[in-house]
Amino acid sequence: MIKNLTMLTDFYEFTMANGYFTEGCGDRIAYFDMFFRRIPDGGGFAIMAGVEQLVEYFKNIRFDKEDIDYLRSQGIFDEGFLKYLENFRFCCDVWAIPEGTPIFPGEPVVTVRGPVIQAQFVETMILLTINHQSLIATKANRIVRASEGRAVMEFGSRRAQGADAAVLGARAAYIGGCVGTACAIADRDYGVPALGTMAHSWIQMFDSEYEAFKAYARTYPDGCTLLVDTYNVLRSGIPNAIRVFDEVLKPMGKRPQGVRIDSGDLTYLTKKSRKMLDEAGYPDCKIVASNALDEYIIRDMLVQGAKIDSFGVGERLITSKSEPVFGGVYKLSGVENEKGEVIPKIKVSENVEKITTPGFKQVYRLYSRQTSNAIADVITLFDEEIDDTKELTIFDPEHTWKRKTITDFYARPLLKQIFKNGECVYDCPSLEVLREYCRMQVDGLWEEVKRFENPHSYYVDMSQKLWDIKYGLLSRYQD
Amino acid sequence: MIKNLTMLTDFYEFTMANGYFTEGCGDRIAYFDMFFRRIPDGGGFAIMAGVEQLVEYFKNIRFDKEDIDYLRSQGIFDEGFLKYLENFRFCCDVWAIPEGTPIFPGEPVVTVRGPVIQAQFVETMILLTINHQSLIATKANRIVRASEGRAVMEFGSRRAQGADAAVLGARAAYIGGCVGTACAIADRDYGVPALGTMAHSWIQMFDSEYEAFKAYARTYPDGCTLLVDTYNVLRSGIPNAIRVFDEVLKPMGKRPQGVRIDSGDLTYLTKKSRKMLDEAGYPDCKIVASNALDEYIIRDMLVQGAKIDSFGVGERLITSKSEPVFGGVYKLSGVENEKGEVIPKIKVSENVEKITTPGFKQVYRLYSRQTSNAIADVITLFDEEIDDTKELTIFDPEHTWKRKTITDFYARPLLKQIFKNGECVYDCPSLEVLREYCRMQVDGLWEEVKRFENPHSYYVDMSQKLWDIKYGLLSRYQD
Repeated sequence: MIKNLTMLTDFYEFTMANGYFTEGCGDRIAYFDMFFRRIPDGGGFAIMAGVEQLVEYFKNIRFDKEDIDYLRSQGIFDEGFLKYLENFRFCCDVWAIPEGTPIFPGEPVVTVRGPVIQAQFVETMILLTINHQSLIATKANRIVRASEGRAVMEFGSRRAQGADAAVLGARAAYIGGCVGTACAIADRDYGVPALGTMAHSWIQMFDSEYEAFKAYARTYPDGCTLLVDTYNVLRSGIPNAIRVFDEVLKPMGKRPQGVRIDSGDLTYLTKKSRKMLDEAGYPDCKIVASNALDEYIIRDMLVQGAKIDSFGVGERLITSKSEPVFGGVYKLSGVENEKGEVIPKIKVSENVEKITTPGFKQVYRLYSRQTSNAIADVITLFDEEIDDTKELTIFDPEHTWKRKTITDFYARPLLKQIFKNGECVYDCPSLEVLREYCRMQVDGLWEEVKRFENPHSYYVDMSQKLWDIKYGLLSRYQD
Repeated sequence: MIKNLTMLTDFYEFTMANGYFTEGCGDRIAYFDMFFRRIPDGGGFAIMAGVEQLVEYFKNIRFDKEDIDYLRSQGIFDEGFLKYLENFRFCCDVWAIPEGTPIFPGEPVVTVRGPVIQAQFVETMILLTINHQSLIATKANRIVRASEGRAVMEFGSRRAQGADAAVLGARAAYIGGCVGTACAIADRDYGVPALGTMAHSWIQMFDSEYEAFKAYARTYPDGCTLLVDTYNVLRSGIPNAIRVFDEVLKPMGKRPQGVRIDSGDLTYLTKKSRKMLDEAGYPDCKIVASNALDEYIIRDMLVQGAKIDSFGVGERLITSKSEPVFGGVYKLSGVENEKGEVIPKIKVSENVEKITTPGFKQVYRLYSRQTSNAIADVITLFDEEIDDTKELTIFDPEHTWKRKTITDFYARPLLKQIFKNGECVYDCPSLEVLREYCRMQVDGLWEEVKRFENPHSYYVDMSQKLWDIKYGLLSRYQD
């Protein structure tokens, strides 16, 4: 979807930018981090998503004449500033954690370095883009894990919060592990496989359910999936489906693909339907279930023995209904002095979790050499290196007596540079690659972190150097 | 935002359309209704929104070469059908309830009449568009009502579910009663007034809060609103603000506009701040509060005597966090026979609230001639008229012994034709007009319907003729 989103920004980005410009400090080099504080649904981790759309945004920042005219009409902006916007060239450095990576509270997931006038300006779109897609990828991953290997399709366009939510939501859900979407444009534009068969209205348009099924099977003898709950699943839907499989598909030498049940007691109905299909000689006919599903309902149904081969998940996935906000924030972490040294900046707060971590930072993930499982993340100053040939003692930044020495590990930096002086230096991986990468990264988390209820808190620690800076600044503010 | 959303549709719309085409029944005239079943947040009414974007969608339905190529690559569609799409011309009739109107469960809010192949196809975008904007307009209206006359600004872009959610959400929030938005592009493109001042990072960029306030006041002596919670509201923020008002604004003969508090105990802090500002000679300085607000928190704060002049409301408004789904559905209600007569269609369900109301329908709202308050809605067959010169007996469609005779009323049809044979016949009112219309329509609802908790159920009744058709069809399905 090509459209210029430069003006999709909070108005205060303009009032601040104009202020920096007229105060003569717009070119001062500043560092900003995006990070989040809480994992949705009380989960053990979130999934990063949206970087490709962020790249597109950065590539296309420009102010057209109508934008300048609009701003001028506000009557509060300096003409020199408007001229600056007219000639705007994005020149920031940007780092981001790749899409599909499990991410944790307090870690910088996007870092921007550049003239404060620019690095501040991009706040709204960074947050909007990463917050939205990470929310949906995280929710999708939960639902996919609850489904224990069964396919999950994203079905939610009609309940999405606008067109982008439908399309980019389908994209994010695919990264998180869904096998496809009902949304055709997400397939055309992003290659998320789209699938679909019929609505209840198809059944109603014919004189009977039997006639409707027959017409559908004639039209789609390959991949024939019938919606069996328009009238009564067990008394009408399944018997009619079997009759049509026998009468239409069998003579053509075709096997049915499946039946879909979209209402009623799915656990009960799928068990009974499975039995009827098996007895009729269709043990290979899949059962698809849909209707206001999410990870909790799916888990319950499976515990109760529902016979379901795949799930269609709509509104509760596409809006992340149980927690529809991913609360990422974007905070100043430092400014450079005349010598190019980074002066760390901290935002204090009475609320401990709202205190920011100052400085220009990198995030290292430490993996066990034996299992390749992720052991912990360590936030460091950007130019610090972690020597993974030696043992390393990590400690909890809040409760520093909680220490752990790790050996036999390797360390990987998570933040990758995606823009350098305003030029893109990153090739966005294909969706297929991201989806597989996400699967492997989630596989490499401990089971305790993947629990739905009361997951173990994954360690996100700090290097001693970074800790000294943070707590040094904090104690200075105690006065 | 101009982009072609034709392909934003569920894939099953294509499989069904192709099926109707190859079965030779694609031109059969069908009627579909969009309606919803539950009011979000247990409220007494919802607010219709999104019609203007629906009009844009209908005007721009077309299949480009890349769309046809994509569909052909699926290998399941008839070439004649693809040719039909290539030459597609939208030719449906469409009726919709105007934006800003209070709407109730079970009422058709959009009705489409046309060849089934077309009338079915537009399902996804009708639902997506109206569901999203009605959700946000409804939530905004709740928050505005809780604020009891104080201004409410929409502040949520950064937490919106994608770009459209931010921009069209700001539009819907304005219809619902917000005074403006933080989102600049919503102002440029839709005229929703945008406002904004500074983030905490502005304060951090200067050597002190005092310096930061001074710089801001110098730059914006008119409309100077200062963010006072970066360090400590009462010990630092308010005293520094007063000092800058005295030192910068007073000599220029300017009055401050306000202070904003974005964290902490807003009730306590605003009471203390009000006192300090009053004592310093700034009783006209407004106090703006923000930070994860919604109608419940606002109501509580006001009950506790918070001194707040206006609210900035973000994530809980732009996602309708407490209930992020507006569950509108789109169902077949009838087909025409060869003589052009409407054969009503019903969808039965074991779940009573999922049973549809058949036939081509109109919705009348009955208003008291004395108070102009809305008394009840009556769903009728489309060509029925309600004679408001006589008394009228209405009855509950479920409990038909509940009857009420009303006199001294006037009746207004709610569904307006917006497309006729595929041509737009509707002038979308300006946002200002819609916002004012919404305010007046909500004013005309009984207080009992406007309660947040356990509101009185507004009457949505049926004409005798329509009732006879619905319950006639239902009893036929009982066998």
